[in-house]
Amino acid sequence: MTDRIDQKLAELGLTLPTAAAPVATYVPAVEAGGLLHVSGQLPFRDGKVVTGQLGTDVDVAAGQDAAKLCALMVVAQAKAALGGDLSRVARIVKLGVFVNSAAGFGDQPEVANGASDLMVALFDDKGKHARAAVGVAALPRNAAVEVDAIIAVTN
Amino acid sequence: MTDRIDQKLAELGLTLPTAAAPVATYVPAVEAGGLLHVSGQLPFRDGKVVTGQLGTDVDVAAGQDAAKLCALMVVAQAKAALGGDLSRVARIVKLGVFVNSAAGFGDQPEVANGASDLMVALFDDKGKHARAAVGVAALPRNAAVEVDAIIAVTN
Amino acid sequence: MTDRIDQKLAELGLTLPTAAAPVATYVPAVEAGGLLHVSGQLPFRDGKVVTGQLGTDVDVAAGQDAAKLCALMVVAQAKAALGGDLSRVARIVKLGVFVNSAAGFGDQPEVANGASDLMVALFDDKGKHARAAVGVAALPRNAAVEVDAIIAVTN
Repeated sequence: MTDRIDQKLAELGLTLPTAAAPVATYVPAVEAGGLLHVSGQLPFRDGKVVTGQLGTDVDVAAGQDAAKLCALMVVAQAKAALGGDLSRVARIVKLGVFVNSAAGFGDQPEVANGASDLMVALFDDKGKHARAAVGVAALPRNAAVEVDAIIAVTN
Repeated sequence: MTDRIDQKLAELGLTLPTAAAPVATYVPAVEAGGLLHVSGQLPFRDGKVVTGQLGTDVDVAAGQDAAKLCALMVVAQAKAALGGDLSRVARIVKLGVFVNSAAGFGDQPEVANGASDLMVALFDDKGKHARAAVGVAALPRNAAVEVDAIIAVTN
Repeated sequence: MTDRIDQKLAELGLTLPTAAAPVATYVPAVEAGGLLHVSGQLPFRDGKVVTGQLGTDVDVAAGQDAAKLCALMVVAQAKAALGGDLSRVARIVKLGVFVNSAAGFGDQPEVANGASDLMVALFDDKGKHARAAVGVAALPRNAAVEVDAIIAVTN
């Protein structure tokens, strides 16, 4: 499956980013009870965080792209946590999508689709996940989006 | 137990809504490792989202009602995901309650009780859950409340 | 391990607070499938909630301290839920850190470290967790920080 994911990434013109080191004293992912909990990931492009607020200085298309970058980093972190073997991914169970939002901005679902669509594109049926998308007042480093994940894994 | 839940709903003068289709490219619920993760649900009344912000144009009583409507939709989604059989619900494990809040509004617990009370009314001891209630800057479709859930299920 | 945790707390000059009663109709923690889900905890000092907003009237150091107080309460709730026996803690799996934030405040990771550092100080490698830290518009009782947790436990 790793080969398949690599192939799909290539077809989409994407490459996994280097798994980012945590900003602080925690770890990128923890596996317990068959579930891999992946820490909240920020959107990195060329090593810099994509910043800004939806509803003011970031539009929905740019927000979707930021969400996609977060999801790519989630996959990169999962791959690193699983020893490079994404074939252990049994199911993307849940994405938490936190969108840096002005009061009254209500298109979090469209923004979050940037992350959701990537998961389905990469993992097909195994990529179909539950999701919560909410608008938050602020994010680390003024990031536009943050995404965390729960992934079911096989032994 | 489905019969019991249906009976309790009737006693409360409630009916489960039609399980709403996701606003986007994800699924309403995913089961893995004995836990059903239910996507964030919005409050629907007569097919329309209950909108507004606590601390400005929505009061606590209306917020509680919105939270209850979210919880009803969580139950509807769980029922659909479990093939109509709520007897597989072993425990409502966790509710995440996101309240559309003005800065300084601090009654999220009271608002969230609208969801929590319903779970206990429907599932008794199995309905007693852990919870996180927070105030968010914005929600999809300007909803007043969003609720997601983790539910332990039997095979 | 309880003795070890008690000893570490003493070395750090800390004592576990009395496990706070929920503000509302839910329970402090639920165990299912080997995972203990702990409800969102507020920062209590001398029985009062530490209040305020990061980016306006609370600085990062005070925010870190609030996060640490939340984490202490998480440990107190886990201990109570586990019948007083913290030796059943196999791993701190995930912390959700919600920071009461002004728009544009981006130091949630530094604030959240107050909670994360405590977990590692108390539980060593078992304390190394995944984490999501976000900035929210408002919190219950105008708390500065709220922390929830998922903890893997042994039987």
